[in-house]
Amino acid sequence: MKLDKKSKILIVGLGLIGGSYAQALTDKGYYVGAVARRRETIEYALEHKLIVSGETEVTRDYVSQFDIIIFALYPKIFIEWIKNYQDYIKDGAILTDVTGVKRSVVYRVQEMLKSGIEFIGAHPMAGKEVYGVENSDKHIFENANYIVTPTDDNTGNAIEMCKALGYELGFKTVTQLTPEKHDEMIGFLSQLTHCIAVSLMDCKESEHLVDYTGDSFRDLTRIAKINDAMWSELFLLNKDELLNQMDLFSEKFTELRNALENEDMEKMREMMRISTERRKFFDKK
Amino acid sequence: MKLDKKSKILIVGLGLIGGSYAQALTDKGYYVGAVARRRETIEYALEHKLIVSGETEVTRDYVSQFDIIIFALYPKIFIEWIKNYQDYIKDGAILTDVTGVKRSVVYRVQEMLKSGIEFIGAHPMAGKEVYGVENSDKHIFENANYIVTPTDDNTGNAIEMCKALGYELGFKTVTQLTPEKHDEMIGFLSQLTHCIAVSLMDCKESEHLVDYTGDSFRDLTRIAKINDAMWSELFLLNKDELLNQMDLFSEKFTELRNALENEDMEKMREMMRISTERRKFFDKK
Repeated sequence: MKLDKKSKILIVGLGLIGGSYAQALTDKGYYVGAVARRRETIEYALEHKLIVSGETEVTRDYVSQFDIIIFALYPKIFIEWIKNYQDYIKDGAILTDVTGVKRSVVYRVQEMLKSGIEFIGAHPMAGKEVYGVENSDKHIFENANYIVTPTDDNTGNAIEMCKALGYELGFKTVTQLTPEKHDEMIGFLSQLTHCIAVSLMDCKESEHLVDYTGDSFRDLTRIAKINDAMWSELFLLNKDELLNQMDLFSEKFTELRNALENEDMEKMREMMRISTERRKFFDKK
Repeated sequence: MKLDKKSKILIVGLGLIGGSYAQALTDKGYYVGAVARRRETIEYALEHKLIVSGETEVTRDYVSQFDIIIFALYPKIFIEWIKNYQDYIKDGAILTDVTGVKRSVVYRVQEMLKSGIEFIGAHPMAGKEVYGVENSDKHIFENANYIVTPTDDNTGNAIEMCKALGYELGFKTVTQLTPEKHDEMIGFLSQLTHCIAVSLMDCKESEHLVDYTGDSFRDLTRIAKINDAMWSELFLLNKDELLNQMDLFSEKFTELRNALENEDMEKMREMMRISTERRKFFDKK
């Protein structure tokens, strides 16, 4: 199937990301429905015209009308959902998700899926430090990257549909990675940085330091405000890669620490020159 | 002496900070002179009305006319300057500085100073990732904090004068710390964060990751663009405190790493809840 304005799209889970997807797709003219646990969530989304229909119960009648189903759930709940309700999904439907780790989700879901429906993984690299449908904001996608993570089981059609969805949502760039490459990259760029921020913030009771805080400490700890239930689950699901990345960072940090202890000025300056050189690439975009 | 519009102020060293001081004080109506190594620097500062006079040679005639002397030099060059030229300074003058470490500078300068002149340390917590008088910009002080670091050798008058100078420069807050407390605080909030950014940026050839980079990696590495000559000198001059702070961070980071390795979900979530709670204080200002 192709993505066109007649496609009926179901979003399962209306948190910040699910709600923002709903807003973006509704504004583009799609028929968007939703399943959410709480009645208030559905009511809010209907009132604010994020969706045209919504249910708190998962029923065959409701689910079976949709061509595209987007799962915006925590990874484990997502897999449970597939186990319990995939029978309700109509033949030919395409499923995708928003999960921040890929190997542990994509292969498992593809393995358990009944024939006639296809799952293609995707990771919208966007977010905010707030949660819930009330904070839905399609503009968070504007400067962000959407990564499609196909496996050998995926069809070219589904991959194309998923990429088209990324563009319809308003993402600046849409790219493609294997689940393996995705998890390595996200382990380094996102999960490791969150580990650093959390550890730094945990070092001290720092309330009395607020007056002396410049931009650097603020920048490094912004992401220390973190949804502990979600991130600890994501960390565990990417445990091997995240441990690799954490150990790599520790090694470099210890190198710098030992250079300082040994008063090895040349080594310290060399490390700073490398970081200065490399950081320049990130200014250009 | 008190700070008033008749005070003649000499700035020694016209880099980004020296130049921005000159701009702020000239705009407030003070007589501002400068000593800089390069002729082009003085010419630029004169042309752009940052100063009303300037020299590349340090002479008794020139230096002796000033009531307040602000040193905007690297720490070691600053101490050398005092050794070589303090005889030129007139009786009753007050000296201050902009150095980012305090114990190793303040006590040494106060010890070697001839009688009749007084040195009071200060640290303007402001900067940019660019250098040189051409980038002078007094607005960098607007949201920043100015820390005065007196010792038992300082007079109340000099402390008050130095604080008044901070306000005249346009700093949002002016606070006071002992050199010891200053160095501990700066070791944690500023030097440690720079060590983290440099180490993170040094982990990988990351040019190919630019497309996938969200705000978190960008935020954590912004300060990895670093003046290696200046920062390595500052690190060495605060070696004991910085090592303490680096070891504290490593300890916390290893705690989180081991919680992940042991799949200790509760420990990971606990660390995230603490960081989330603590980070809130930094949102308020």
